[in-house]
Amino acid sequence: MTLTPADESFAAPLRARLPEDTLREAEARHLEEPRGRYRGSGGLLALPRSVEEVSVLIAAAAAARVGVVPWGGGTGLVGGQTLTEGPRPLILSLERMRAIRAVHPEENVLVAEAGAILADVQAAAHDAGRLFPLSLASEGSARIGGNLATNAGGVNVLRYGNTRDLCLGLEAVLPDGRIWHGLTRLRKDNTGYDLRNLLIGSEGTLGVITAAALKLSPIPAGQGTAMLVVESPAAALELLSLAWAQLGEGVSAFELIHRQGFDFLTEVLPEVRQPFATPPEWSVLIEVGLAAGLDPSEALERLFATAAERGLVSDGVIAQSDAQRRALWTVREHLPEANRRIGSVSSHDISVPLGAVAAFIEKGGAAIARIGQFRINCFGHLGDGNLHYNVFPMPGRSRADHENQRGEIKSAVHDLVAALGGSISAEHGIGRMKVEDLERYGDPVKLAAMRAIKTALDPQGIMNPGAVLPA
Amino acid sequence: MTLTPADESFAAPLRARLPEDTLREAEARHLEEPRGRYRGSGGLLALPRSVEEVSVLIAAAAAARVGVVPWGGGTGLVGGQTLTEGPRPLILSLERMRAIRAVHPEENVLVAEAGAILADVQAAAHDAGRLFPLSLASEGSARIGGNLATNAGGVNVLRYGNTRDLCLGLEAVLPDGRIWHGLTRLRKDNTGYDLRNLLIGSEGTLGVITAAALKLSPIPAGQGTAMLVVESPAAALELLSLAWAQLGEGVSAFELIHRQGFDFLTEVLPEVRQPFATPPEWSVLIEVGLAAGLDPSEALERLFATAAERGLVSDGVIAQSDAQRRALWTVREHLPEANRRIGSVSSHDISVPLGAVAAFIEKGGAAIARIGQFRINCFGHLGDGNLHYNVFPMPGRSRADHENQRGEIKSAVHDLVAALGGSISAEHGIGRMKVEDLERYGDPVKLAAMRAIKTALDPQGIMNPGAVLPA
Repeated sequence: MTLTPADESFAAPLRARLPEDTLREAEARHLEEPRGRYRGSGGLLALPRSVEEVSVLIAAAAAARVGVVPWGGGTGLVGGQTLTEGPRPLILSLERMRAIRAVHPEENVLVAEAGAILADVQAAAHDAGRLFPLSLASEGSARIGGNLATNAGGVNVLRYGNTRDLCLGLEAVLPDGRIWHGLTRLRKDNTGYDLRNLLIGSEGTLGVITAAALKLSPIPAGQGTAMLVVESPAAALELLSLAWAQLGEGVSAFELIHRQGFDFLTEVLPEVRQPFATPPEWSVLIEVGLAAGLDPSEALERLFATAAERGLVSDGVIAQSDAQRRALWTVREHLPEANRRIGSVSSHDISVPLGAVAAFIEKGGAAIARIGQFRINCFGHLGDGNLHYNVFPMPGRSRADHENQRGEIKSAVHDLVAALGGSISAEHGIGRMKVEDLERYGDPVKLAAMRAIKTALDPQGIMNPGAVLPA
Repeated sequence: MTLTPADESFAAPLRARLPEDTLREAEARHLEEPRGRYRGSGGLLALPRSVEEVSVLIAAAAAARVGVVPWGGGTGLVGGQTLTEGPRPLILSLERMRAIRAVHPEENVLVAEAGAILADVQAAAHDAGRLFPLSLASEGSARIGGNLATNAGGVNVLRYGNTRDLCLGLEAVLPDGRIWHGLTRLRKDNTGYDLRNLLIGSEGTLGVITAAALKLSPIPAGQGTAMLVVESPAAALELLSLAWAQLGEGVSAFELIHRQGFDFLTEVLPEVRQPFATPPEWSVLIEVGLAAGLDPSEALERLFATAAERGLVSDGVIAQSDAQRRALWTVREHLPEANRRIGSVSSHDISVPLGAVAAFIEKGGAAIARIGQFRINCFGHLGDGNLHYNVFPMPGRSRADHENQRGEIKSAVHDLVAALGGSISAEHGIGRMKVEDLERYGDPVKLAAMRAIKTALDPQGIMNPGAVLPA
């Protein structure tokens, strides 16, 4: 089905129906994405202020068969926010819909519009004495609507779940322009199919989320952070089991760091203070958040002592102050920036079952070595089985030198992931970057069901064309 | 679209393809449901042993346009398991597919076939030193496939979520007979639409779940139970906030009990030992599960002391032994049986936002009083805003005396729930009992999307016809 360009004949009647400054020409920032791999050639930018205006815009797009690209904070890493081909689209940015509509601390609920910046949602929850646990590198510019549309992950998934686990209800505009008023604050609601979870993670291809009722949590009475040197990824997983046994759900984050990450920091971000004189081959960053009556540092010391007895850990730093906690997290948080400065040949956001993590790391290294000489920075959310497995050129070489090997590296990593029952996109989504990968590695019956659902809800294919499924 | 009866011309070719004892005439137990409100007149019963056999059965039903009723443990309370109208169906019981396929304690994952009894899943997790937290009255006969199909709730939702929150992956047969191999054990997997959550809670109308990868949790190091007398439902909610502040996610269950429940126990189950000499107007049953280093009884005593200072609680019993814990839970667990023996005029499984619970109870009582003289037993999962709001005849009268008022009572309760932004089915689902209610109270845009999805995935309408959506 051919789409129609969002040209002046489309825009003119809309201008008459919407406030004066709602429509304009898309700016550069709406046509690019952070890694610079996708770039749109233009578009009609809409900046609605209400769900009713979103409804008017989508209904008009549906009537005219104009493609719609929902735009959140623009921080996505797989090109889901950038249409590079096809007729000029309507780019729908929700940046003006950024209100925190309500906070219900007694219910542990916050209602935010889709354009609210993630950090603002976190702050509003904190001001009410509650925690909104979604936390990721781009939280200062990512918007909650985009987090929902991509089911964003981050560092607290281990304890609090992915974004979909933090959402109770949605308000959304479906591809025919009709508004779904599903903004429930209910913990239990078994009235029909789970449209909420269908929209969450559909990357704007089934509708536009305009507001969400979000689940808050109590702020743990005390938090503690440690970076422990482990003998191997397998030992790290044993350490995680031990931590669960001792602290239950109190384990909030469990991040794996490889020596390569420390070396990259030394190389390109020497100002980041590192906790170890000699970077360890493998270490983990552990965060715990405990109930009143438990001392987090003591709990981490007890964990370290038991783990040392069992030969799982050999060294470590347990933060004794908030400043030390921040310093340890600073190391972890600068790894992506160090990676960017080095410049990867190929990056992979993958997950495997926890029991297969060690095998993945071992076999992955061997597979890459068969292709050539590379540096591998393997780090990430070990507790979720989610690794950012990034392959870099050796010192003195650049990513351009390996352009022709990128496809081979990607296939080697993804083939291995698939063989181990893993996912080729753990937390970033499919966007436009992994559409072919999904067709190749996805379950064919699930893909058929996805296409049937897409056709049923968006028969003209106007919503984010070319994302998730081939256009 | 008219369905075809599952007669001998349908069965004969299947008999040739499947093991001898796979097909037989449905027995009485497959044609009834616990409350005796729905009764099927017959059906061809299939007892497959594998997902491949399920696939053969569904494909044949699709080819012949035969209606399929998936049957789990038969414990559903809304008639989802019982077809009462239309051509003779194929009743698909998964009772032979009850294997625990694998337990991965190091991953906190268990893989069970859909026919596994919930109590057996709990036991398998426990044997591996883990907790499968789904817990409900019928756990000794409910099957996990049915729990998933209905997104069952229960007493631990407050801490661990509904059944959908306990599932990582599914194996299922879709309405065309094809097998979806989605049995992933991944914590993060953003590869396309959330087919898992679409099937969960769809009550067998979009496919048949044949196996699931389930999320386990650490067993809390110590558990504690208390029954505290609260001044009002509003005070109970303040107590919950206080408990969260002191114990974080350690609060596993928070159940509201009204005096009427104790009185019913005295009336029809006098052998159940009650904790209070004089039944309190309102009380809550609190369960906490805490990490090592915290004494649950001490934690509950501290909670009681603070709550008493604030005037929220006036009396209470804190269990000092496992036997006392069991005794308190025995009271709560016998409330549904006492209700059954008294015989309700109308029962309601509803939820409202936590902040609206007190208003619901007050306005609900007034609305019922306007209809007539009744006894109301309002109890349930207060922490989830989920109340079982059941209306009973006065002593000496029977439900038959109020037959003509049932509709009026139901409408009054559901209208109030809708006005407060609540749900007319919190945890039991829609089944066949609430199809009309869903059409009346459901969001029309969501209903339209549901119908579009149903038609897309099950164009012939063979899967559990008449459940959730009108046939």
